[in-house]
Amino acid sequence: MTLAVRYTCARTLDTAPAVKTPPGPGEVQLAPAYVGICGTDLHIFHGDMDARVSTPAVLGHEMSGRIVSVGPDVEGWRPGDAVTVMPLRWDDTCAACRAGHQHVCQRLDFIGIDSPGAMQQRWTVPASTLVRLPDSVPLDRAALVEPTAVAVHDVGRAAVREGERVVVVGGGPVGVLIALVTRAAGADVRVIEPSAHRRALAEELGLTVWDPAAEDVAAAIARWTGDAGADVAFEVSGAAAGVDTAVEALGVRGRLCLVAIHPRPREVNLHRFFWRELTLVGARLYDRGDFERAVALVADGTIPADRLISKVVPLAEAPSAFEALEGGGDVMKILVDCGNDPTGELV
Amino acid sequence: MTLAVRYTCARTLDTAPAVKTPPGPGEVQLAPAYVGICGTDLHIFHGDMDARVSTPAVLGHEMSGRIVSVGPDVEGWRPGDAVTVMPLRWDDTCAACRAGHQHVCQRLDFIGIDSPGAMQQRWTVPASTLVRLPDSVPLDRAALVEPTAVAVHDVGRAAVREGERVVVVGGGPVGVLIALVTRAAGADVRVIEPSAHRRALAEELGLTVWDPAAEDVAAAIARWTGDAGADVAFEVSGAAAGVDTAVEALGVRGRLCLVAIHPRPREVNLHRFFWRELTLVGARLYDRGDFERAVALVADGTIPADRLISKVVPLAEAPSAFEALEGGGDVMKILVDCGNDPTGELV
Repeated sequence: MTLAVRYTCARTLDTAPAVKTPPGPGEVQLAPAYVGICGTDLHIFHGDMDARVSTPAVLGHEMSGRIVSVGPDVEGWRPGDAVTVMPLRWDDTCAACRAGHQHVCQRLDFIGIDSPGAMQQRWTVPASTLVRLPDSVPLDRAALVEPTAVAVHDVGRAAVREGERVVVVGGGPVGVLIALVTRAAGADVRVIEPSAHRRALAEELGLTVWDPAAEDVAAAIARWTGDAGADVAFEVSGAAAGVDTAVEALGVRGRLCLVAIHPRPREVNLHRFFWRELTLVGARLYDRGDFERAVALVADGTIPADRLISKVVPLAEAPSAFEALEGGGDVMKILVDCGNDPTGELV
Repeated sequence: MTLAVRYTCARTLDTAPAVKTPPGPGEVQLAPAYVGICGTDLHIFHGDMDARVSTPAVLGHEMSGRIVSVGPDVEGWRPGDAVTVMPLRWDDTCAACRAGHQHVCQRLDFIGIDSPGAMQQRWTVPASTLVRLPDSVPLDRAALVEPTAVAVHDVGRAAVREGERVVVVGGGPVGVLIALVTRAAGADVRVIEPSAHRRALAEELGLTVWDPAAEDVAAAIARWTGDAGADVAFEVSGAAAGVDTAVEALGVRGRLCLVAIHPRPREVNLHRFFWRELTLVGARLYDRGDFERAVALVADGTIPADRLISKVVPLAEAPSAFEALEGGGDVMKILVDCGNDPTGELV
């Protein structure tokens, strides 16, 4: 029997038989190998997104896997191909799409939130969402391609240039990935993160990390930049204080890239935006170019994806992994092993 | 006797003999002709900027006039030349200056706030601040060059392109100037302004203006843009509601140019910045290119500066003009006539 992990109501996941949908025209059926648990999945689990999510909902949008079967009219893909999925479906008709910004389509279908996700042993998706994985990339690491694509997109939106000084506020998975992509772009980066566990991991990756509880961050930035302030700040914490920290960090003409989701309005020091001619840039998701770049960064080791994987749990244990994650704590990325790897034998 | 208008303490201006400073090396002495009263002057008058302003303070930074005498080492300028002044002095050593952003120098001297301004019959300034006026521009109109330079800078920061849909929140002098500069750039512009007097004036200039009290602005923008939202919004109101209106006006990848001063932090819908990948751009003051462009726009009539001048008062009546302006009301731009024009005879 093939299984799926389903969100049924707040704080409740179950496992149930997967709905095996034969691939229609333009579709492929996949055998997901690994699926990362994302902050958004936790928001859904907490019941925060019940207005958007239809239950029972199969979660999961950070994945790797192999093609099982290919529907009619699909060219260029064969059973056995290793892939990840860019989980976006757009309508191609709205103003955003017409302007070339399909990834923020006004009627976007985010697969794994708005339609069934990857946390199951068979998953049928449009072939247009597939992104090829080189054979050299182990599939567990490849599950980090999606959050890496987020980071690539964010760094692109902030237009980080070589030699710039960059502050990343929040050292969770996306914050660390942004720091690594930024470093690869030749920038000098500091991460601000209160969790000792996350600080230690980021430091093991060679990043310089400041503890906001122990360090006067404003003074540290002034010392580091010779009173000029940082060129770029990424707000990845989702906290009100994180917004303040990011705004205060920036020097004249600094750019703040807003990555985290702030469900409620935040007080923002707009006078500082005026006075220093700052820029705030919202960043959401990614496009195909970001995804392909992310594959390359995971493949060449720029992103040491294996170091970011805290734990791998079997599919049947995903519900208890979500419960354990609720407390936050000493963890970076948890993967769900769908049981379809590494033998290549599909269940 | 040459006179100066001086701010002495909250809600108090007096007139006193001007301090006639002979021009030193690199300086010129001017005979100001007309000086506009700016919102910042009113803030000073209200006592809001006492921490920054040394009293007695001669106000005024929107001006036109003629050169009276030229100090040593000044080349290219002669007595009688018609000029306006870009009232900025920077230190050329701070991080902002080193990065080429002298206009937001970390130790900027804004002449007219941080040092004596133009509301006097003799005024000595560095020759480096002079901007030449063509003979074709009447000096009263030329007093509008400075706020026009603000508008040119703002429109540049927002990178308005031909054919874009632009919303200007706030139809005071700077808002109307932004709308006119935007229109000259080939954009389609709507102004949002609650004052009937200001709406009427903007409409006389051929602008389309919406009254937020009578019109559902969000619905009007949806109709106007076919549900896409505006490309650019300028927040020129300084009000909390103005920020919300500007954010809500924007479509995917829209740019909000923050022009108004918001002394206190404002609640901002950051989720919208994330969701639609909006950009917020702070804009402050201007550079020499903006000023020279502003001169050209006033000279060629793109900016019908005469239409924006509500009233001209003699220098001795400036104190009562400030008091009258306190109530806000039915006024656009008030000029102070320093008594040095139009005969060309200097007092």
